[in-house]
Amino acid sequence: MSASPAGPARYNSVLMDLLGVMAYGELSAFERLSSDARYSPTLHDRAVLGRIAVIEFQHYELVRARLEESGLDAEAAMLPFQPSVDHFHERTRPADWYESLMKAYVIDTVSGDFYRAVSRYVDAGTRELVERIQSDEEATTVLRELLRTALAADPRLASRLSLWARRLLGEALTQAQRVSFEHAFLPGLIGADEARSREVVSGLLAELAANHSRRMTQLGLSG
Amino acid sequence: MSASPAGPARYNSVLMDLLGVMAYGELSAFERLSSDARYSPTLHDRAVLGRIAVIEFQHYELVRARLEESGLDAEAAMLPFQPSVDHFHERTRPADWYESLMKAYVIDTVSGDFYRAVSRYVDAGTRELVERIQSDEEATTVLRELLRTALAADPRLASRLSLWARRLLGEALTQAQRVSFEHAFLPGLIGADEARSREVVSGLLAELAANHSRRMTQLGLSG
Repeated sequence: MSASPAGPARYNSVLMDLLGVMAYGELSAFERLSSDARYSPTLHDRAVLGRIAVIEFQHYELVRARLEESGLDAEAAMLPFQPSVDHFHERTRPADWYESLMKAYVIDTVSGDFYRAVSRYVDAGTRELVERIQSDEEATTVLRELLRTALAADPRLASRLSLWARRLLGEALTQAQRVSFEHAFLPGLIGADEARSREVVSGLLAELAANHSRRMTQLGLSG
Repeated sequence: MSASPAGPARYNSVLMDLLGVMAYGELSAFERLSSDARYSPTLHDRAVLGRIAVIEFQHYELVRARLEESGLDAEAAMLPFQPSVDHFHERTRPADWYESLMKAYVIDTVSGDFYRAVSRYVDAGTRELVERIQSDEEATTVLRELLRTALAADPRLASRLSLWARRLLGEALTQAQRVSFEHAFLPGLIGADEARSREVVSGLLAELAANHSRRMTQLGLSG
């Protein structure tokens, strides 16, 4: 696959979209997580969630730096994605600490899969950045262990969290689809027409759902 | 002044209070600031406030590490101060971005003065930590410049922010006084009786108010 399937100007605009949605996603995740942290059951848990929020912020800074190095305006890159990302968060307000944990885990893993898949189509430098960010397993591991512990301590949580995770996945897939076609982002990236792009996106969404389901099963939840 | 005015056991309990209130103060400031960041007028400003929140979190981690190195339980150290710090934040909810900036600035500077004053009475290692944290001028400088810019752009802000800052100072001084006598923290620290300690605290509060007033004047506000 060519690193620049549709000419440098088109590619730059696509790159701006990819980095813009990543940057805004990380910045929002930081804010939401650190606000949610306040409702943690113990001060220790608050700090743990805070630490994960800080990791998101550091990822945001990496993506922002990449935008700036590429001569792209970070603000302009993020703005188009603000409504859909905010909308996602509005539709998925956690009711408590456990739902916050699950939300953070689902966002972290599903968006990781999404960006990794999409990064196949970008230049080596950008791909490296995406891989560097998505291979940072600290947050994922901590969240998974917290969920495991919570589920072991209170088995009644399982059905509630299963439902919640399914809802989150649904919203996340809607979001992934929306982002893919915003600005014709994915068609631009893979250099295909709309029909072919819809096929690619459908395949990608199925892959995201399957991976999610596997992770839920590993937690002992119905995927 | 002895580093351990009232015997090692008493000193350890006093140290635990000092580090506990600092740690919980930083952790709360992190959460409040990052929540407030969402209401920033531009994405750039959101990120700037986010960055300041992250600095607070890093300070929290330093204090926590010090507690742990000293064999003290960070959770147990923070818990007693949770009600009063939370109460402070409940009483000072910013109505908008400008009030958030001012709140962050007042907390940053007044608590900096407070901890620096109190650190005269602690051991060298702890004093070094307090100085290291309080001499980190990044947040202070950024907040001051943001306030300056905001005030220059809209002169009508001045009277509102003057009033708000006065209210914040009042609450901060009440808070400083409360913290000083919680667990007889300050009397334990300076190794004096209650009456003498009240004198010391009065002097300290007057000093905090004077410094605050000077900073407000520098911003062109009535102190």
